[in-house]
Amino acid sequence: MAGFFISFEGPDGAGKSTVIQELMQPLASQTGQQIVVTREPGGSAIAEKIRQIILDVNNQEMDDWTEALLFAASRRQHLVEVIEPALAADKIVLCDRFVDSSVAYQGGGHQLGTDQVAALNDFAIQGHYPDLTLYLDVPVTVGLQRVQKLGAGFDRLEGQKLAFHQRVRDTYQTLLAANPQRMIAVDADRPLALVQQDCLAIIKEHFQARNSD
Amino acid sequence: MAGFFISFEGPDGAGKSTVIQELMQPLASQTGQQIVVTREPGGSAIAEKIRQIILDVNNQEMDDWTEALLFAASRRQHLVEVIEPALAADKIVLCDRFVDSSVAYQGGGHQLGTDQVAALNDFAIQGHYPDLTLYLDVPVTVGLQRVQKLGAGFDRLEGQKLAFHQRVRDTYQTLLAANPQRMIAVDADRPLALVQQDCLAIIKEHFQARNSD
Repeated sequence: MAGFFISFEGPDGAGKSTVIQELMQPLASQTGQQIVVTREPGGSAIAEKIRQIILDVNNQEMDDWTEALLFAASRRQHLVEVIEPALAADKIVLCDRFVDSSVAYQGGGHQLGTDQVAALNDFAIQGHYPDLTLYLDVPVTVGLQRVQKLGAGFDRLEGQKLAFHQRVRDTYQTLLAANPQRMIAVDADRPLALVQQDCLAIIKEHFQARNSD
Repeated sequence: MAGFFISFEGPDGAGKSTVIQELMQPLASQTGQQIVVTREPGGSAIAEKIRQIILDVNNQEMDDWTEALLFAASRRQHLVEVIEPALAADKIVLCDRFVDSSVAYQGGGHQLGTDQVAALNDFAIQGHYPDLTLYLDVPVTVGLQRVQKLGAGFDRLEGQKLAFHQRVRDTYQTLLAANPQRMIAVDADRPLALVQQDCLAIIKEHFQARNSD
């Protein structure tokens, strides 16, 4: 028995955080392992300070490569301070967004190049990819409508235009095709109960397969 | 005529900032071009915020790769907001530390690997190396004694142990050997007037060679 690292990915409004909350209880009871729910910067004081710079709406002059480097820095610190200690303590880690988000948003959305952003993030994660990545897929317009319905307001990243979000989703599809072992798509344009049910089944299958290795 | 980008490198206490100040007036009068003196974060608000995280003595839990990524992010923003506009306006830029400092301090000093840190910084500078790098060389003990004499106190980075600084200097020597066109060593364990005189001669030679290309 050892820790198991699961990331959740998808366009804005795919419902990742809601699904993650709904998975905690059944996963804990069915595996008997402790569940850690996290998202970058995840309670790391340093990663949080980095994140504040990224999301500050006043930082309009931020270069796209600066942003990609800052996401990688925040990711590194969160990985070292939060995720790796939890895995070392045999916990199951559910992480809301990880490296694929940078490839999709900075590489695809901001058009820095997906290979380039993936290579940059290799310095942050040093080969530590998730054991499993659940990609919650919704059409871009559905996702953005959900975000608006929440009434939380758009932050600097969410305020980008529709074409940006379409490039993000296209990049996720490319990542899915390139990483069939690690990344599994779930249709998230359905009622929450069905999405949760599919996620749980996929996690159990991969978790058991890994433990029987 | 166009801008000319000069970086100054060396161990702590090599006297870079003093030499740079002494070079401004003669360079301006002898070239007829405007001189911009800068150092990271160099007046970029975003780069400054990043720098505050790096140098905060409270951030003891900072991972070495996080630090390297943050230096690269600060460098990127300073390059885009400060250095590149100055060069585009035909100014001579004197920059106190640039990419070689990360290779020497994070790659050599923290032992992350010089090739690795150089590759990481390629994402920050996107090929934009200085036209000329003056390496002010002093023995590690001489440099550290100078820093202490200033009475400014050690920040988190300066407080590292002597072996660290020896690795930094060794890495600078390796970089010098690998980049003979761009990097020129100046013996800085001599009176300021002599150091300044050598720097001025080297800059004029390279500046004229570039302009006659």
